Amino acid sequence: MAAAAGGGADGQLKVLGAWPSPFANRVRVALHLKGLEYENVEEDLTNKSELLLASNPVHKKVPVLLHGGRPVPESLLILEYLDDAFPAAGPTLLPADPYHRAVARFWAAYVDGKLHGVMVAALTGATEEERAAATADTFAALETLEGAFAECSGGKGFFAGDAPGYLDVAFGAFIGWLRAWDRITGVTLLDAGRIPLLAAWAERFAALDAAKGVIPEPEHIAEFAKVLQARAAAAASN
Amino acid sequence: MAAAAGGGADGQLKVLGAWPSPFANRVRVALHLKGLEYENVEEDLTNKSELLLASNPVHKKVPVLLHGGRPVPESLLILEYLDDAFPAAGPTLLPADPYHRAVARFWAAYVDGKLHGVMVAALTGATEEERAAATADTFAALETLEGAFAECSGGKGFFAGDAPGYLDVAFGAFIGWLRAWDRITGVTLLDAGRIPLLAAWAERFAALDAAKGVIPEPEHIAEFAKVLQARAAAAASN
Repeated sequence: MAAAAGGGADGQLKVLGAWPSPFANRVRVALHLKGLEYENVEEDLTNKSELLLASNPVHKKVPVLLHGGRPVPESLLILEYLDDAFPAAGPTLLPADPYHRAVARFWAAYVDGKLHGVMVAALTGATEEERAAATADTFAALETLEGAFAECSGGKGFFAGDAPGYLDVAFGAFIGWLRAWDRITGVTLLDAGRIPLLAAWAERFAALDAAKGVIPEPEHIAEFAKVLQARAAAAASN
Repeated sequence: MAAAAGGGADGQLKVLGAWPSPFANRVRVALHLKGLEYENVEEDLTNKSELLLASNPVHKKVPVLLHGGRPVPESLLILEYLDDAFPAAGPTLLPADPYHRAVARFWAAYVDGKLHGVMVAALTGATEEERAAATADTFAALETLEGAFAECSGGKGFFAGDAPGYLDVAFGAFIGWLRAWDRITGVTLLDAGRIPLLAAWAERFAALDAAKGVIPEPEHIAEFAKVLQARAAAAASN
């Protein structure tokens, strides 16, 4: 993926991330769940470090996990890597059963391929009509994920059952943005009347020790969203 | 992902696919490499079966692997599933080493996220300029993958080394389209002067017993591409 980058060759873990990024925050929550020590490096996404560019030259994006200096980019692949490289550290994120593994991976890919795209479009669409359509798509995606929760959780508190797993972490890292939505747009996404299972799950996930200090507070996300929207508007008018 | 669909509850394997689909063909090559028996069901993508729609209600796409009636959609997830569910059948597709697993998954995701997108745009772009730009992007993506081959193969014949693995199957299923490109567009993509390692790898992969009869002949793909281009042009003029 890249030539070996900095970070030491001693097995030390370092995360190149950014506090508002759900993708980066997945990695931190996963490391906390597994009880793995790491150094957190906050990237300025408007002025990316040489280490980030050298570690992920293809995508130039956070997160990157550096393990003994070797870079692993892409958040979902990092979660797989943590299970593969640290089988004895804390809980395994993916289920043991092959079919349940496929189901968890399917829905995590849905979060990235569908939910993330419509959320971005709902914030940055060029017209009010585009943003409204993307908001409707976001509700539809959340309702689909509500169904997935009913299917996966077996009536327990997390997608993975009694304790959070791969899909909980993959989707849970979006909770900061989901909770900030009404401040940003006036629309409540985590509506307990509409998606009661996910609304309760989000409370439960955000209260985990592993998520505390990682899932950003709604007011911080709302401020950051204003900056993003201003940038998108400036780009559209150029 | 879906309620249990048809296909028997006896552990039998069935692939819902379509002969021109690189995604479906990944699954068939993987099953051949592992020596697993399966039933191949050819879908008409203009008139999808009830079984496909019930098995993959979220994406409504091929491929789906049915294993004892339980549906596993998404080609890369099916490759993971085959490793997970049949650890004793034939070679494991993913490498054993956690870092090498991450590297193989990274490049397979690049094939899907980048290469596939620019290839589609090169064929179906609305203007000649758009198609030319996407063709340039396709060459750039292939040159990036040429570098990945040098990095992964260690001077051996396949991305995975002496024998084909996960990334070989994920990318190799595109060889039918890559080889047909000059017939479709007049441009040779697998240009041994430009990407010598990939050009030789493609010959090697297509000659595998596991790939024979699965990777379509260039003339068949070229005919199919004409149909797709006509559909795209009709859609654009509506």
